[in-house]
Amino acid sequence: MSNVFNHRLTVRFRDCDSLGHVNNAVYLTYLEETRFAHWRSLGGELLEESGGARGIPGVILVRVEIDYRAQAHNGDALEIRMQVTGFGRSSFTYEYEIVDQSGRQIATAKSVMVMFDYETQKAVPIPEAIHALLTR
Amino acid sequence: MSNVFNHRLTVRFRDCDSLGHVNNAVYLTYLEETRFAHWRSLGGELLEESGGARGIPGVILVRVEIDYRAQAHNGDALEIRMQVTGFGRSSFTYEYEIVDQSGRQIATAKSVMVMFDYETQKAVPIPEAIHALLTR
Amino acid sequence: MSNVFNHRLTVRFRDCDSLGHVNNAVYLTYLEETRFAHWRSLGGELLEESGGARGIPGVILVRVEIDYRAQAHNGDALEIRMQVTGFGRSSFTYEYEIVDQSGRQIATAKSVMVMFDYETQKAVPIPEAIHALLTR
Amino acid sequence: MSNVFNHRLTVRFRDCDSLGHVNNAVYLTYLEETRFAHWRSLGGELLEESGGARGIPGVILVRVEIDYRAQAHNGDALEIRMQVTGFGRSSFTYEYEIVDQSGRQIATAKSVMVMFDYETQKAVPIPEAIHALLTR
Repeated sequence: MSNVFNHRLTVRFRDCDSLGHVNNAVYLTYLEETRFAHWRSLGGELLEESGGARGIPGVILVRVEIDYRAQAHNGDALEIRMQVTGFGRSSFTYEYEIVDQSGRQIATAKSVMVMFDYETQKAVPIPEAIHALLTR
Repeated sequence: MSNVFNHRLTVRFRDCDSLGHVNNAVYLTYLEETRFAHWRSLGGELLEESGGARGIPGVILVRVEIDYRAQAHNGDALEIRMQVTGFGRSSFTYEYEIVDQSGRQIATAKSVMVMFDYETQKAVPIPEAIHALLTR
Repeated sequence: MSNVFNHRLTVRFRDCDSLGHVNNAVYLTYLEETRFAHWRSLGGELLEESGGARGIPGVILVRVEIDYRAQAHNGDALEIRMQVTGFGRSSFTYEYEIVDQSGRQIATAKSVMVMFDYETQKAVPIPEAIHALLTR
Repeated sequence: MSNVFNHRLTVRFRDCDSLGHVNNAVYLTYLEETRFAHWRSLGGELLEESGGARGIPGVILVRVEIDYRAQAHNGDALEIRMQVTGFGRSSFTYEYEIVDQSGRQIATAKSVMVMFDYETQKAVPIPEAIHALLTR
C-alpha cells in the first residue's frame, strides 16, 4: 500500500448541472486528474495518458466504483486523497476520498487499473519498475 | 424486475479524449441520459432532473459501479439497455449494458438511486405510484 | 456557396448548467458535430478529426463568432443548419443557424477554417478536390 | 476601461480531444471561469451564475468571438487576462487574452454581456453600482 497522494482542484461552473451541484460524471474526471498528477509527481511516464506509446505498456481503467456522500458546488476547493491499495499480477487498485474545504466527505471511490500492451491488445504483468514507483 | 428499456445515442467527438476513444467519465452521462429517457417514456415526472421540485420527492444517485469492456469511438451508435433490478425501502437499483452498432459489449454498470426529500434532506420510502411506474 | 446542410441532435442533461439551460460553451460542440456530420455526408475524409493524418492536410478551426438568441433546454431537439459561405486561398467560412423543435432561433454563428499542413505547421492552399466537395 | 484581471487555471486531461490539445469549446469555459473569478474578486454578487435570482437583474452572455492562435495541452498552466473594454446602456464588453506558462498567446476573445431582468425577460440599464464595480 502506498502513501496517500493529495490533489487539489477547484470546482468549475461547467462541472455543475441544473441541480446546482457537481454532476455525477464529473467526479470521474476528478479521479482521472488525480491519477495524472500522481504520475507526474512520481516522475513517471504518463502511461495512461500516452496510451502506451513509445513501446511501453499503457495503463487502462477497467472498473470504477463511486459512492456519492454529499454535494459539491461551484467554486469549492476539493481535495482528492488517493492511495494504491492492492496489486494483482497485471492490475492494481486505487482508493480515493474526496473532501471539500470544510473537511466534509463528498465521495469515496475505487478504481481498478490494468497494465496493457496496445500492440497485442492484452494485459501484461506489471513491470518491476512500475510496481516500485507505485509503492514508493 | 422491470422490462429492459433501450436508449440509443451517438458518440460525439467531444465525448472522446486524447486516446481517441470515449472518455471513462462520459459513460456516466450516457447512463444519466438513459434514466431521463426512461422517465419520459413512463410519462413520469423527471424527478431526478427537477431535484424534487413541486413538492414531490426527488431521486438521487448514491452509487455507480461500471466495468469498461471495450472502447467506443466518435460516431458510434450506442445502445444502452437498462433495467430496474431491485428495490429497497427507499432505494432501487438499475443495471445497464452498453453495446455498439456491431453488438459488441462496451460496458456494464449498476447504479443505486434513493428517494429523497430535499426539504428535510432525508431518504423517504418509495411512493407506491413510483414503485408501480418502475415495475410496469 | 454550398447548399444548406442540416444536422439534428438532442440536448443532453449534461449540456445544461446551473441556470437550467444549455451552457454557452456547448453550442461550439454542436457546431463541431455538424461539421463532422457534413464531412461524413460528403464521403470525404474526416480531415479535422484526423488532424491531417495519412499525409493529407488537415482542417483547423481558427475563429468562431456566436450570437446567443434564446435558451435551449434538456431534451430539446435542435437542428443546426450549416452552409459554406466563403472561400479564401487557404481558408473557408461556415455559417450556422441553430433552431429548436418549435422553429425558434437559438443561436447563429460563423466559423473560419484553415487548411493546414501539420508537418510544416503552415497553412496551405485548399486542394481542388476539397473545394469541389465543399461547394457540391 | 477596467484594470486587467488575471485568472489562472490548469488544463485538465478531459479538456483535450482526440487531436491531443484543448478542444475549441473548452476555451469558452475558461472565459466563463474568469468572469466568475472576477465577480468574486469584486465582492459582487455572482449575477451571471445566479440567473438574477433574489430580485436583482442578471447578466447574460449574448455574443462571443474567439480567435485560436496556438494549441494548449494537458497540464498547461494558463493565464486568462480579462478587461472590461466598453459599455452600452444595457451591455458591456469583456476582452480576453489567454497565454500559457511560456507566455505564448493561445487565444484572444471578446464577449458581450447584457443586464437582463428575468421576470420581464428584457434588457435593463446597467445599475450605477454595477457600473462602478466593473470600472473600479
